[in-house]
Amino acid sequence: MTEKNNEKRKAEERRTDENVIFVGNKPPIGYVLAVVTQFNQVSDEVVIKARGRAISRAVDTAEIVRNRFISDSVVKDIKIGTESIAREEGGTSNVSSIEICLATKKKSK
Amino acid sequence: MTEKNNEKRKAEERRTDENVIFVGNKPPIGYVLAVVTQFNQVSDEVVIKARGRAISRAVDTAEIVRNRFISDSVVKDIKIGTESIAREEGGTSNVSSIEICLATKKKSK
Repeated sequence: MTEKNNEKRKAEERRTDENVIFVGNKPPIGYVLAVVTQFNQVSDEVVIKARGRAISRAVDTAEIVRNRFISDSVVKDIKIGTESIAREEGGTSNVSSIEICLATKKKSK
Repeated sequence: MTEKNNEKRKAEERRTDENVIFVGNKPPIGYVLAVVTQFNQVSDEVVIKARGRAISRAVDTAEIVRNRFISDSVVKDIKIGTESIAREEGGTSNVSSIEICLATKKKSK
């Protein structure tokens, strides 16, 4: 039973990993296309993640997908958090993070 | 009846306006103090708003308030959207926006 649950959880984690788009410092359109591709190929749910200054770009990405490409998508959930990152000169610094979960209403591929 | 409702709505809008902190391009600590002051003086709910690149700073502000100043506060709701802004040279450009609603659990001032 526990094993089964573990397997289930692993499968969920795998699926989750595939659905995640990490937004960095490139122009938003590349991330937009990655999200759109995910929606078309695999899943009815995509998570857009970003840290620090890229957070604004993650919001841009979600908004462009929603307004211009996949009009039946909705913002299902948004989480914010703080991550500790090791600095090169020692010690850690905190950086904010965001996770935007976009989902399509209709599809059930 | 309608007048009464209007008054009620106006009162709500007024209250909402007072609770809103607009995050711009200054260092986050100023906005953090504004949010903390709001919580201490007036309300058990504060909305942090930002547009464009300041979105990252709005998330920083919310996280700093939550982690360092008001530890019983929670992220109640986050909304993202797109606003059209008139450009100086004519036409409009779209900019992303965020609204983070922070609330304290205990207080009921």
